[in-house]
Amino acid sequence: MKATAELQVIPVGSGVSVREEIEQVVKVLREHALKVEPHASGTNLEGELDAVLTATAAVHESLHDGGAVRLISILKLDTRGDKSPSLKDKEL
Amino acid sequence: MKATAELQVIPVGSGVSVREEIEQVVKVLREHALKVEPHASGTNLEGELDAVLTATAAVHESLHDGGAVRLISILKLDTRGDKSPSLKDKEL
Amino acid sequence: MKATAELQVIPVGSGVSVREEIEQVVKVLREHALKVEPHASGTNLEGELDAVLTATAAVHESLHDGGAVRLISILKLDTRGDKSPSLKDKEL
Amino acid sequence: MKATAELQVIPVGSGVSVREEIEQVVKVLREHALKVEPHASGTNLEGELDAVLTATAAVHESLHDGGAVRLISILKLDTRGDKSPSLKDKEL
Repeated sequence: MKATAELQVIPVGSGVSVREEIEQVVKVLREHALKVEPHASGTNLEGELDAVLTATAAVHESLHDGGAVRLISILKLDTRGDKSPSLKDKEL
Repeated sequence: MKATAELQVIPVGSGVSVREEIEQVVKVLREHALKVEPHASGTNLEGELDAVLTATAAVHESLHDGGAVRLISILKLDTRGDKSPSLKDKEL
Repeated sequence: MKATAELQVIPVGSGVSVREEIEQVVKVLREHALKVEPHASGTNLEGELDAVLTATAAVHESLHDGGAVRLISILKLDTRGDKSPSLKDKEL
Repeated sequence: MKATAELQVIPVGSGVSVREEIEQVVKVLREHALKVEPHASGTNLEGELDAVLTATAAVHESLHDGGAVRLISILKLDTRGDKSPSLKDKEL
C-alpha cells in the first residue's frame, strides 16, 4: 500500500536548537526507498507505507544511538484505496 | 525499544460520523501486543515501537479492506533512551 | 462555534522530564471556560473555538513567562456545521 | 509573541478529494498578516501567534459557511522565549 506522509521529530531534553538532530533525521530517511522533501515543519515522504514506518523506527534508533534522551515524533499518514497517493497530487 | 504513542485515524470521504471505523481501529489495535486506551481524540498506546508501527499498518489495511476510500492518520510517538516510557508515568 | 480539541505542549530545551510544565498547561487551561480532560498524550478540550484558541495562547505566554525557552504545541481542532460536537459523543 | 506554525485542515464527510476546500484554506490564510507557504501536508505559517490563531478560526468559519459539515485541523505551533522564530531558520 502506498502512502504519503509527514514526519516531524522533536528531541526533548537536548538543547533548544535541534538542527543537528534534524539533519540526522533527513539523512536516515534518505537511506530508505522514499521520496523525501524536508520543509520548515517536518519532512514530507512518499513511498510504501511499510517503508515509511520502517524509516520512522530507524530514525528513532539512530538518534537514540547518537545520544538523544527523549524523542517525540508526529507522523501523519495518508493512504487511499481508490488510487495511489502522491506528494505531487497534494500540491496546490 | 519501548514507546508510548497516540493514534488518531480520520476516514476522509466516508460519512460525517465515523464511529464504526473508529471501533474497527480499536479492535485491530487490541489484536496486537499493546496497552490500548481509547479517548475522545485518539487512542493511547504503549508497547514495543515495532508493535505500534505494525498495528498502525494493520489498521490502515483493515479499514481499506472494509471499504474506506481515504485515511489520514496522526501518530504521535514518544521514546526514551534513559528509561522505559509508560502511559502511567505520563498521567498527571 | 463550538469545538472539541486536544492540546499537547512539548517544552524543548528544558529537561527531559516536563511534568512541571504540563501541570502548568492544565492549570492555565482550567482558568478558561472549557471542559478540560488531561490524558497521557495531551489534554482534551471542549468549548467555544475562540476559548480554545485564547487558552492555547495563554498557555504559551504563561510557560514562556515561567522561563520556557521553546515550546512546540500540537493542537487538534474538530468543529461541525451540522451539530454541536462534544467529547462525550466522541468516546466509544 | 511571534510563532511559526503549520495548519492542516481535513474536511470529513465531504468527498474524497478536498482540493477545493484546501484552496479556500490558503486563500483565507493569505488574508491575514502571515507568511503563508503551502506544501503537500499542510501550510507553514509565520507571524504573530494571535494572527495564526485568528486565521485558524477564520478558516473554520469560512469553510463551514461554504458548506463543510465537519472539519478536523492539526495546528502545530512553535514559539520561543529567547529569539524570534522564523520559517527561514527552520529550513535545512
